[in-house]
Amino acid sequence: MLTIQSPETQPWTKAEFEATLRAQHQRYHHLHPFHQRMNAGQLTPQEVRLWVLNRFYYQRSIPLKDAAILSNCPDREVRRVWIDRIIDHDGRKDSEGGIEAWIRLGEAVGLSRQEMLDDRAVLPGVRYAVDAYVNFCRTRPWIEAIASSLTELFGPDAIKDRLVALEKHYSWIDPKGFDYFRTRLTLAPQDARYALNLVLQHCLTRESQEKAVQALIFKCDLLWSQLDALARGDTRPIGK
Amino acid sequence: MLTIQSPETQPWTKAEFEATLRAQHQRYHHLHPFHQRMNAGQLTPQEVRLWVLNRFYYQRSIPLKDAAILSNCPDREVRRVWIDRIIDHDGRKDSEGGIEAWIRLGEAVGLSRQEMLDDRAVLPGVRYAVDAYVNFCRTRPWIEAIASSLTELFGPDAIKDRLVALEKHYSWIDPKGFDYFRTRLTLAPQDARYALNLVLQHCLTRESQEKAVQALIFKCDLLWSQLDALARGDTRPIGK
Repeated sequence: MLTIQSPETQPWTKAEFEATLRAQHQRYHHLHPFHQRMNAGQLTPQEVRLWVLNRFYYQRSIPLKDAAILSNCPDREVRRVWIDRIIDHDGRKDSEGGIEAWIRLGEAVGLSRQEMLDDRAVLPGVRYAVDAYVNFCRTRPWIEAIASSLTELFGPDAIKDRLVALEKHYSWIDPKGFDYFRTRLTLAPQDARYALNLVLQHCLTRESQEKAVQALIFKCDLLWSQLDALARGDTRPIGK
Repeated sequence: MLTIQSPETQPWTKAEFEATLRAQHQRYHHLHPFHQRMNAGQLTPQEVRLWVLNRFYYQRSIPLKDAAILSNCPDREVRRVWIDRIIDHDGRKDSEGGIEAWIRLGEAVGLSRQEMLDDRAVLPGVRYAVDAYVNFCRTRPWIEAIASSLTELFGPDAIKDRLVALEKHYSWIDPKGFDYFRTRLTLAPQDARYALNLVLQHCLTRESQEKAVQALIFKCDLLWSQLDALARGDTRPIGK
């Protein structure tokens, strides 16, 4: 438990603020039953494919939300760093990028490129959660949008566990499909560190600090909500 | 005059469509009295500084509008090309970019970096025109936003004339300040060609073609409007 001594209008110290952000780890989706079943080796191939396909809708939306942050950010120095996130996902002539790596994960679990790119199979609950994220980054101040990215503080540990579990329990998946996760293990910590420093530097009032925490909670909720939708599956009378 | 034989609902041929886009040259701001006075060597140093400072508000907004286009564009191949426009303006570790080059133009005409970066001196009419452009690119379909960039078809000729005039008539300006224009002479034609091809390929109905033409007219109008505001100067009872 974090004990806040100061009245509600006093800004947190940087240490208190960072601790409050990091405390949101307890909302992160590594705790979701779907991910816990994944790590315990309990997902069927069909469930793995459902996850890979639906999560791709999130992956392919990441450059859109990062471009929205760029578009709202008047600080050229920040833009010059943040733009690498778009390149990391979209790739360039000489590197394929995270979206392509996720498509190869899809192929490794038995989905064709065409099935991945056709987003009609994405579950409505997943779509709305992801679209809410892009919309948040388009319409909120850029520093709040950056605060929402701080789930990357929690990502690497979850990815490490997931990689171990995937290689141990899902031997039917070609491990070359896991390149996406290996790349994120390198990129996510440095991305998270940069974003955290920006948020700590820019949010100096209690109000802006609390908005940053709310942005991170919003992001945790939308990751969680995607897994809820996955776990529930397609309940419509007629699918896509 | 372009004569359209087909009824209003028939798409233009690619040649007709391209000709209609290019015909908007007659709306381009090279014809504005302020630019004509510039090219004739008639601007006072104060007017040159007014132009450089106010136009900087446009320059520094360009990455914001290009990021907005990225954020709205679901086509990764397009994003992988379009992102270079942001880098061209913002620069990276190893290259300074167009915004920095424009700041050096400012210094060459006697404005400090601080005066350039403090946007309070920007005339309201200039600000609203530029903000309208960013807002257009945030809210309209990405292909319309790209169509609005086609003023770059008309830019290089205007820049060539401007460079000759600046070097001939404004010898008090250090010609090193003109690097921005020299870079644009290389970049603008290739940027314009790529954007034109996208618009020709994607706008296949008469309605979408006409929207592209309207987007280009909108852009011509907002460039023109900036010069109107400049020519009028600050008419407020109290300035910034």
